[in-house]
Amino acid sequence: MRVGIIGASGYVGGELLRILLNHKDVVVTFATSKQYKYEPIHRVHPNLRSVSDLKFSEPNLDKMTSGCDFVFVAAPHGSAVKYVPSLLESGLRIVDMSADFRLKDPQAYVHWYRLNHPNPELLKVATFGVPEIYSQEIKGARLVSNPGCMAITSILAIAPFAKSGVIDLEHIVVDAKIGSSGGGTKPTMGTHHSERYGVVRPYKPVDHRHTAEIEQEVSRLAGREVRISMTPHAVNIVRGILCTVHCFTERKLESAEVWRILRSFYQNAPFVRFVKDKKGLSRYPDPKILSGSNFCDIGFELDERLNRLLLLSSTDNLVKGAAGNGVQCMNLMLGYDERSGLEFPGLHPI
Amino acid sequence: MRVGIIGASGYVGGELLRILLNHKDVVVTFATSKQYKYEPIHRVHPNLRSVSDLKFSEPNLDKMTSGCDFVFVAAPHGSAVKYVPSLLESGLRIVDMSADFRLKDPQAYVHWYRLNHPNPELLKVATFGVPEIYSQEIKGARLVSNPGCMAITSILAIAPFAKSGVIDLEHIVVDAKIGSSGGGTKPTMGTHHSERYGVVRPYKPVDHRHTAEIEQEVSRLAGREVRISMTPHAVNIVRGILCTVHCFTERKLESAEVWRILRSFYQNAPFVRFVKDKKGLSRYPDPKILSGSNFCDIGFELDERLNRLLLLSSTDNLVKGAAGNGVQCMNLMLGYDERSGLEFPGLHPI
Amino acid sequence: MRVGIIGASGYVGGELLRILLNHKDVVVTFATSKQYKYEPIHRVHPNLRSVSDLKFSEPNLDKMTSGCDFVFVAAPHGSAVKYVPSLLESGLRIVDMSADFRLKDPQAYVHWYRLNHPNPELLKVATFGVPEIYSQEIKGARLVSNPGCMAITSILAIAPFAKSGVIDLEHIVVDAKIGSSGGGTKPTMGTHHSERYGVVRPYKPVDHRHTAEIEQEVSRLAGREVRISMTPHAVNIVRGILCTVHCFTERKLESAEVWRILRSFYQNAPFVRFVKDKKGLSRYPDPKILSGSNFCDIGFELDERLNRLLLLSSTDNLVKGAAGNGVQCMNLMLGYDERSGLEFPGLHPI
Amino acid sequence: MRVGIIGASGYVGGELLRILLNHKDVVVTFATSKQYKYEPIHRVHPNLRSVSDLKFSEPNLDKMTSGCDFVFVAAPHGSAVKYVPSLLESGLRIVDMSADFRLKDPQAYVHWYRLNHPNPELLKVATFGVPEIYSQEIKGARLVSNPGCMAITSILAIAPFAKSGVIDLEHIVVDAKIGSSGGGTKPTMGTHHSERYGVVRPYKPVDHRHTAEIEQEVSRLAGREVRISMTPHAVNIVRGILCTVHCFTERKLESAEVWRILRSFYQNAPFVRFVKDKKGLSRYPDPKILSGSNFCDIGFELDERLNRLLLLSSTDNLVKGAAGNGVQCMNLMLGYDERSGLEFPGLHPI
Repeated sequence: MRVGIIGASGYVGGELLRILLNHKDVVVTFATSKQYKYEPIHRVHPNLRSVSDLKFSEPNLDKMTSGCDFVFVAAPHGSAVKYVPSLLESGLRIVDMSADFRLKDPQAYVHWYRLNHPNPELLKVATFGVPEIYSQEIKGARLVSNPGCMAITSILAIAPFAKSGVIDLEHIVVDAKIGSSGGGTKPTMGTHHSERYGVVRPYKPVDHRHTAEIEQEVSRLAGREVRISMTPHAVNIVRGILCTVHCFTERKLESAEVWRILRSFYQNAPFVRFVKDKKGLSRYPDPKILSGSNFCDIGFELDERLNRLLLLSSTDNLVKGAAGNGVQCMNLMLGYDERSGLEFPGLHPI
Repeated sequence: MRVGIIGASGYVGGELLRILLNHKDVVVTFATSKQYKYEPIHRVHPNLRSVSDLKFSEPNLDKMTSGCDFVFVAAPHGSAVKYVPSLLESGLRIVDMSADFRLKDPQAYVHWYRLNHPNPELLKVATFGVPEIYSQEIKGARLVSNPGCMAITSILAIAPFAKSGVIDLEHIVVDAKIGSSGGGTKPTMGTHHSERYGVVRPYKPVDHRHTAEIEQEVSRLAGREVRISMTPHAVNIVRGILCTVHCFTERKLESAEVWRILRSFYQNAPFVRFVKDKKGLSRYPDPKILSGSNFCDIGFELDERLNRLLLLSSTDNLVKGAAGNGVQCMNLMLGYDERSGLEFPGLHPI
Repeated sequence: MRVGIIGASGYVGGELLRILLNHKDVVVTFATSKQYKYEPIHRVHPNLRSVSDLKFSEPNLDKMTSGCDFVFVAAPHGSAVKYVPSLLESGLRIVDMSADFRLKDPQAYVHWYRLNHPNPELLKVATFGVPEIYSQEIKGARLVSNPGCMAITSILAIAPFAKSGVIDLEHIVVDAKIGSSGGGTKPTMGTHHSERYGVVRPYKPVDHRHTAEIEQEVSRLAGREVRISMTPHAVNIVRGILCTVHCFTERKLESAEVWRILRSFYQNAPFVRFVKDKKGLSRYPDPKILSGSNFCDIGFELDERLNRLLLLSSTDNLVKGAAGNGVQCMNLMLGYDERSGLEFPGLHPI
Repeated sequence: MRVGIIGASGYVGGELLRILLNHKDVVVTFATSKQYKYEPIHRVHPNLRSVSDLKFSEPNLDKMTSGCDFVFVAAPHGSAVKYVPSLLESGLRIVDMSADFRLKDPQAYVHWYRLNHPNPELLKVATFGVPEIYSQEIKGARLVSNPGCMAITSILAIAPFAKSGVIDLEHIVVDAKIGSSGGGTKPTMGTHHSERYGVVRPYKPVDHRHTAEIEQEVSRLAGREVRISMTPHAVNIVRGILCTVHCFTERKLESAEVWRILRSFYQNAPFVRFVKDKKGLSRYPDPKILSGSNFCDIGFELDERLNRLLLLSSTDNLVKGAAGNGVQCMNLMLGYDERSGLEFPGLHPI
């Protein structure tokens, strides 16, 4: 299968390249970048030196259409929407990594992205790319919209409990901690090493855009409109997300019931691991050990004094939070083993 | 004024030494350490090399009593309680850095510390050392019990709002992020650099002991029993705490009202700064710039979609979260300028 | 092929497990650990959770001998030497990760390790495991002794020039920078996160033991005894080594000549990459992008003012500096593709 | 004394502000910044929030001349040279933090800075600001040129030995490790947190400009022309420099002789500390504990096998490597206690 990547010089593009160049069922036929066209990919993604001779090419619609059978769009928000309709029309199947097709409600784009969506009809066509929830839909999809990194990490923690109805839907608090790679490749004062190193810095602590995706999915599972209190923080790592989801329960929950809810929701989810141990350092999810892996680690704790259910979920924001999840969707769309190309287990220590 | 430090080889002891050796109104007459007795203090606190010739001495009750007029007890929890009664009896005034006199209710020690408190009568004598709340009491106190680092950071954020009655007291969530120095000097697998570097690691995510202090103080200010959902996380820094306090409000709050509540509560608090800016990187509190300083930075954000009030507070866990706050209490107890010895503003960048 | 690992709970053991569990030609039949026997390996190596159900077993010589056809010994220095003779006698082929068989001269063990080597005759049997130099010998070896991490990184930089005779052998300075994982898993005050974070700390700045291996190999290639000035520094990373090798040349060298020397020495070395670019961030070797990969990146610069040749080489100390190189040796010994199991290219950014 | 700062929004300017705002003998009357004019200084230097109400002003030569009695020029290289002549003419005394007056030989500016120096006559007027060497000259100077951060750190290590004549002047290797703040405030891809975090990255490994200053001073002390092999590396810290100076000696040196050379050279140097201990973590200089302090820590080790003398020196690149040293020079020029304003001892742990 010939696969192309549009927008391949960003961090998500780099991870798509790393994974797909090692994927036994596909061949990467092109990787576009306006800024770095004609440069070898290893000049931007130095880990790929000697791994591939590929060079970045200019994004040309005709060449892209004819040059591949499947395409990843890793262009910025607001830019993907310009490519996707034509690519779809040409019969290509697509995973779009941007936010441009994540929300079902066109009005939501006005509120969260200040965007009058130019192709509202495609919002229905797009499948929201959470394989743990939409596996069947993804298999038949022509266009999969890959979720935001903090969105998928939060959704995977909350979904089982939103569906089971055991949590207080009025007071769900997501406190997220995320590494610098989530902000992309553009240098700014806020990402300058001297300014960014060692921070615990709230950013967009209310109204972060990933909130919209979490609310959309949690509402659907709960069968009613749910609002989420989400606050991200930049911390001193490059990769990784931990979402601490503070929930309250209507009644006292037992640990066994929580386990039952989790196990039944995730019985066929090869990339969800439950991390809750009695001893050892890795009793809870921690992004430290997830770099490069496609796992989403989920744990929990019950607070008996307060009818509180604490959920913890962790991913590598560039893998399960982006490129790896996109490849997982592609695997489903193309009928491959869901795990193909995603075998790397992560490193310890790191 | 002759000041002694009991238990001076830990990180809090080291910061007490750094601050007090530069304090114009006091002389440090001894610093005890069983483990490092007779060694120069700079062998353990290398920043003090050439700053002082002091050596650690053995803790001997007679010598300590006669050798100083004021004493800091920086011994571990459960150990301070052995020294404090005799020291008090000898007429010394004391700031105790341990948890042994923080809680007013002897039963609470059984629950949180598995300790039958041997001197419950002293729990009434001890003043809880938050100068921003108990300034008058501290001035006359013989024994001040310095709060836990995450406790004081949380309390300073919540107190104005608990008192004003505008927040929903049933759903206060404190999500804390803290550096490794908060765990003390003892090497373990969990603090081993290869294991601790780069983590975002929940620890004691329910039932952390500092919760008891926060509940005690918030309940007092609110005039009713309040329970707090507190979850700390170890992050990849050495010093610093950020407490993200997620609150819900009974009704829609305006920004001006929040400002009024904060300003009126902290009108005479030289170490509380309000950090809420329209632009610049430092729009919110961030422990990055607080290392070595005694400030507690407080900020907030209103979430109009949810009647949510987000409070942010940050300290250096070893300074305003420990040694600096202790010296601030000493200054009040001894009639000095509250700010003496605490002038260092912190570094940027760092 | 059934492969066993003796001493599998350390960091090198963990990387051997990660690599070998994904190696298509081998099956890991046991992994011993006295300290963690009967525990699942993922309790110690959390990245392997859900990847394998293996449990640590006790080291029992009979079981080990019968349970595998090839064995990695990842026991500490001075301990490996107790296992290796019996294992060899039983016909097993061995890669020993310790220092116990690296030096050819028994007297050198007395000087560098204060050890009267109990099996000096085996020092001749052992092949020093640098595939880029001893590929033929390794193919036929029964016992390969894997080099020290700073040793192999230094040797790969110096070897081509020691052989070609263009550098001043009296003034070779190796200034090494290394992450904390090089020190192993034992928590000490020196590895305590609060003490180890942010350091640039010389350790064993003269007489570091890896010096002996570098001198042995450089002397052999140069055809005369050479002494090396080596000084390691602990820096604020977990994985990775950069060796900066400061050399002087007898005469003015041209860049083309340096390239020729490098290319001719490494014409069949799949894991040596030359990193010397005119632009881009990755103009020189940097361990940042090597985590998890088996590459040794080598670069250089000529200083025209001084007849100085600056060599730069970088590895992941746990992979090309340990486990990955060991597997590369195993591949050669067993006639597999040299690259099997070592395909992971490393991550960017990280 | 009224003191002004030209170019106060950079990192050196920020440290000058921090130190001078707390200096008992001076008042900061202005701090210029084209980019941030009229903004409060705490928007750029957030540690100074509530410490000072000063705002940045535009650089206006008349106002600057009349507004102060002493001025620090912290403008970029090539820009300082435009201000200094007029400021000097107006009778102001000056510490210039740039490189524009560091080299004595106008030709050297052509080689190292590609600059035809517009005021070569001022190169003789300027005193090179190393108080440990030029204390008398600085006291009488009208213009002091503050050294480069890696230059002063290297010079303080090498100077005693260059003067005493015990080292081989043909083979002095300086291997420097430095934090990101040394590169200033301008965001680039190379300083982007995701790219800069965790590196051990050689930069300008030959021909770094600070080499020129080291050679100038070492040559003067040695009484002959000396060339230095200097290679800097970016490491994963914000502040701090460690210079590892690899020297060879003509004959076997004894430790006592090294001590004698150091002690005699630095008998009146309050900010030079000797760090060479038999035990403890702080046996050698380490920038970790120097953040914010004006100390230069110097240590050494003798390598008996090689007639090698290893020198180690460490500073905070923004303090003893820049602003602190500049204030130390000002103190000497104005007849104040050399240590005024520079009492902060640094933090541990950090």
